[in-house]
Amino acid sequence: MTLVLDEAQVRLALDMPAAIEAMEALCREEAAGQTLSADRIHLRLPRGFLRILPGVLTQAGVMGYKAFHTNGHGVRYAVHLFDFETGAPLAIMDASHVTAIRTGAMAAVALKYLSPAEATRVGVIGSGLEARTEMAALMAVRPGIRSGRVFSPRSERREAFAREMSETYGLQMSAVERPQQAIEDAEILLVATGTRGGGVALEGAWLHAGLHINSIGSTAPEQREIDPEVWRRADRIALDTLRLLHESGDALAAEQAGTLDRSRIVELHQVVAGQAVGRGSPNQTTLYKSVGTGLQDIAAASRIYQRAREQGLGCEMADFLTARLPTR
Amino acid sequence: MTLVLDEAQVRLALDMPAAIEAMEALCREEAAGQTLSADRIHLRLPRGFLRILPGVLTQAGVMGYKAFHTNGHGVRYAVHLFDFETGAPLAIMDASHVTAIRTGAMAAVALKYLSPAEATRVGVIGSGLEARTEMAALMAVRPGIRSGRVFSPRSERREAFAREMSETYGLQMSAVERPQQAIEDAEILLVATGTRGGGVALEGAWLHAGLHINSIGSTAPEQREIDPEVWRRADRIALDTLRLLHESGDALAAEQAGTLDRSRIVELHQVVAGQAVGRGSPNQTTLYKSVGTGLQDIAAASRIYQRAREQGLGCEMADFLTARLPTR
Repeated sequence: MTLVLDEAQVRLALDMPAAIEAMEALCREEAAGQTLSADRIHLRLPRGFLRILPGVLTQAGVMGYKAFHTNGHGVRYAVHLFDFETGAPLAIMDASHVTAIRTGAMAAVALKYLSPAEATRVGVIGSGLEARTEMAALMAVRPGIRSGRVFSPRSERREAFAREMSETYGLQMSAVERPQQAIEDAEILLVATGTRGGGVALEGAWLHAGLHINSIGSTAPEQREIDPEVWRRADRIALDTLRLLHESGDALAAEQAGTLDRSRIVELHQVVAGQAVGRGSPNQTTLYKSVGTGLQDIAAASRIYQRAREQGLGCEMADFLTARLPTR
Repeated sequence: MTLVLDEAQVRLALDMPAAIEAMEALCREEAAGQTLSADRIHLRLPRGFLRILPGVLTQAGVMGYKAFHTNGHGVRYAVHLFDFETGAPLAIMDASHVTAIRTGAMAAVALKYLSPAEATRVGVIGSGLEARTEMAALMAVRPGIRSGRVFSPRSERREAFAREMSETYGLQMSAVERPQQAIEDAEILLVATGTRGGGVALEGAWLHAGLHINSIGSTAPEQREIDPEVWRRADRIALDTLRLLHESGDALAAEQAGTLDRSRIVELHQVVAGQAVGRGSPNQTTLYKSVGTGLQDIAAASRIYQRAREQGLGCEMADFLTARLPTR
């Protein structure tokens, strides 16, 4: 039987602390060479895209993919999870929350390993779902945060975000009118924008030494979030996957501008596993950039599947996939 | 609601004549530039693979993908079909039969446009499911076939195949001990092998003028079926997709051997739409090679979905995918 989980059930099955645990476990599995992956499918549609991200965790014993698509009427996300050994289907689940929480959870791992441990002040650029998830991630690993500033182009949105964060986390979060104001006092900067058009949300000229930046909003060649100067100013850059270098518009722009220095770039799992240095000194500027991977989706979905089984969530679907002899 | 179809229901919903019609319609849509595609995912596993093939038919108004995988315990195939305009899920179906019948049906289109119209004698190399589907395809478009010869390494399998084809189609099909014997008298040659190891099933030296060959068994770089000399001897080569040139081990071997002449190669849909010449004269040797495409899967699945709806087949699944604002 295959477990079918809708979004509400997925939410019940995985909270941020458990998701962070799952992403850290994934990092260790990646560092140990126990994962398999491949370039994602990114098929452009007239008003959207169809993307498919595969992932295999040989040690955890699961494999599958996330498929998500939109043609202008909202994005639909699904993860399809299979047993690695037998190939049997385990679960089909709505992956909207999976996407948000795994992105946030991996960002939390980056914050845990790269941001100043004693940080008390955060800056935020962006006020959407991903910015909220980033804040949840931050508060899970840096509970010492006491105040923050948020910039977003529309004042009612940044005001609402500031109010909501202040209440949710007991912070002093204020809305500011220019992005520089969100940065100038911060030790940690979260950038999570749904970038449209050609502009960027963060310019390298605004940065100061010692800042750690999490940037998660340029996940396709046509999307931008940070300018090439940010790459030049960062002493250490951790990516969720090296595939980012040809998938993220920010990386492609930095490559073209000549500010992408491969010797400063590592994969986050290398830092988690102690195979690479993260923040070398308090004065270093560090950058985490993510594009999202199928491995993250499968690692999160696997944890969701286990918990949903334990909690009796979801409904069962009769196996409709028959195992056949190989043809093609 | 999403329609869920198991393999038996898929079989009921699509027979070979309707599948051929669907593949011809797809060819016209491809030729008219109304399709979108992307390279497939081909992720190797220790004892198998995970492959995903996307496809979008803008005119037919459907999109989706086929995902299939095995890690040594049989292959599981699923097609996920969505409405092109809205992105809403339409159907999830077992795609084992979809794969076999769309492969056969596209092969039938190739036979219809490339093989001698008055052919009465067929040669077959291979005796598995795909060879059977090729025979069904052949008999649908060349009903004048009266006799045939089949070669397959194991005598009991080729004997069984010969008996079965003779009975099913009222032919004189005999089993032969060497592949050359299957070819020497034939006007049409069907090659459909599940090639293992380094060998090939068909050598170019065995060919004669005027023969049309359908070869469908080398669908990944590590799979082989025909040798580079077949490419040299073919006057005209039609592919189901140009992506075959980097996906099929046969094409890669021909490229390396220097026998792959791009000026003789067309896509089958160009021939169907009259944009390219197929068989130029009775003495030409013609070759159809296929690797399979997501477009074929989606075109077949779309027809299956329509027919299943008309016939009341399958069971309904509550929509579990919510349309969300874009994140990533």
